[in-house]
Amino acid sequence: MKSISVDVILIQGSLAGRNLSARQVVLIDVLRATSVMVTALANGARAIVPVKEPSQAVEVRAKLGVDTALLGGERNALPIENFDLGNSPLEYTPEVVAGKTIIMCSTNGTKLLTDYRYPGPVWLCSFLNLRAVCDALVAEDLSVTIVCAGNQGDFSLEDTLCAGALVDYLADAYSGHLELNDSARVALLHYNANRTRLLEALREGQHGLRLIELGYERDIAAAAEIDQCAVAPRFTEGRVALSGAGATGARPRGAAKPR
Amino acid sequence: MKSISVDVILIQGSLAGRNLSARQVVLIDVLRATSVMVTALANGARAIVPVKEPSQAVEVRAKLGVDTALLGGERNALPIENFDLGNSPLEYTPEVVAGKTIIMCSTNGTKLLTDYRYPGPVWLCSFLNLRAVCDALVAEDLSVTIVCAGNQGDFSLEDTLCAGALVDYLADAYSGHLELNDSARVALLHYNANRTRLLEALREGQHGLRLIELGYERDIAAAAEIDQCAVAPRFTEGRVALSGAGATGARPRGAAKPR
Repeated sequence: MKSISVDVILIQGSLAGRNLSARQVVLIDVLRATSVMVTALANGARAIVPVKEPSQAVEVRAKLGVDTALLGGERNALPIENFDLGNSPLEYTPEVVAGKTIIMCSTNGTKLLTDYRYPGPVWLCSFLNLRAVCDALVAEDLSVTIVCAGNQGDFSLEDTLCAGALVDYLADAYSGHLELNDSARVALLHYNANRTRLLEALREGQHGLRLIELGYERDIAAAAEIDQCAVAPRFTEGRVALSGAGATGARPRGAAKPR
Repeated sequence: MKSISVDVILIQGSLAGRNLSARQVVLIDVLRATSVMVTALANGARAIVPVKEPSQAVEVRAKLGVDTALLGGERNALPIENFDLGNSPLEYTPEVVAGKTIIMCSTNGTKLLTDYRYPGPVWLCSFLNLRAVCDALVAEDLSVTIVCAGNQGDFSLEDTLCAGALVDYLADAYSGHLELNDSARVALLHYNANRTRLLEALREGQHGLRLIELGYERDIAAAAEIDQCAVAPRFTEGRVALSGAGATGARPRGAAKPR
């Protein structure tokens, strides 16, 4: 069996200067950007366009047309004025998002999409779609770099847990033939220690505590539902979409039931 | 019992912009800078002067005098040309270092001392002096920020292990009354999973593997000897010295036997 190298990057600042060529890149922002994007696409959204600033979101919508585009996201975990949607996965229902393009702006997750240049396509992962991302990675069969969005530039417990879960899935798929960097080892250890108490672990982290304080407790549970969405979103040319879904927003085979 | 907050910073890049006022700061670079500095001071060195570049080390020695100063350190784990000492704790014997000032230059550890401004004194920690640093921290009774030097700007398994060990010592001293940030939780988990196999864990990390490859295997064992040095070095005004040791280089009470 072939062996692949799996690196985890725990803090997005460590991404600068990293050589990602000939590697597949996976981005994780469990609370809440990648959980939201995965949910939106599984529920029939056509695409997600990440932007840096709320003002840019408004400009992009003006170009795309008000009928087809919705604005979503947060600033410091709170909804943005005049946006259609916040940053809760629970808002992104099929009724709201089917066929729409979502223009998104968030503190940690969309920053990872707008602030770095990637040599190739990038996969978006959360607990909701671990299996689908793992299958997509195995199909390409290249080495993998998993990037944790983190919390305000710092380490985040929940992204590291999810990175560890993906390392665990990959270890299974490659019968343990993985070369892990130091961060990947620790992420895997962290996941194994918490795999049977995932929701509690997410609630204990700094970001989890902040969301509970702000009244977004249900979002944590919504982000902890392992493999509820059988979609592997890909970021390429400035947009996140399902590979193979095409521009029509058609639901791919194997897509999750609306959540 | 009073509670204190304990933050761990896993990657030195995350230190920029962090508010450290009213906190005690601890720096860790297990392989090998803080292990070397702790050993040197326990063995009677007067002080350590960290510098950014080898050329600066030569200038500083010219000022201090060739008789009293030695040059030590590494570049990419290898000795520096025309330096007296490399970066192996085993070189810093009492015979070599007693009464001397060591001018040091290293890739990760001294960078933490030269590249950042700290609002107050900074403690230097390694596995060799966990108890002494813990006692010094408890005596001050302020919240603590533990900074891992890391490996070439990235996460390091061994520094995180040592940070976790110090969190464990502090948890003992404060009867568990600690508020931990996400990184401190993971560091503690990592230490608890490896506390009975510390040397093996250090040997498995990327930096450990690199040192073994370069023939510095014995340095890993030398860095894994828990509490062999009863000294708590402090960095202040550009120099690392034992608090209370004064300018005479006198060995403080409770200092370790030469190693």
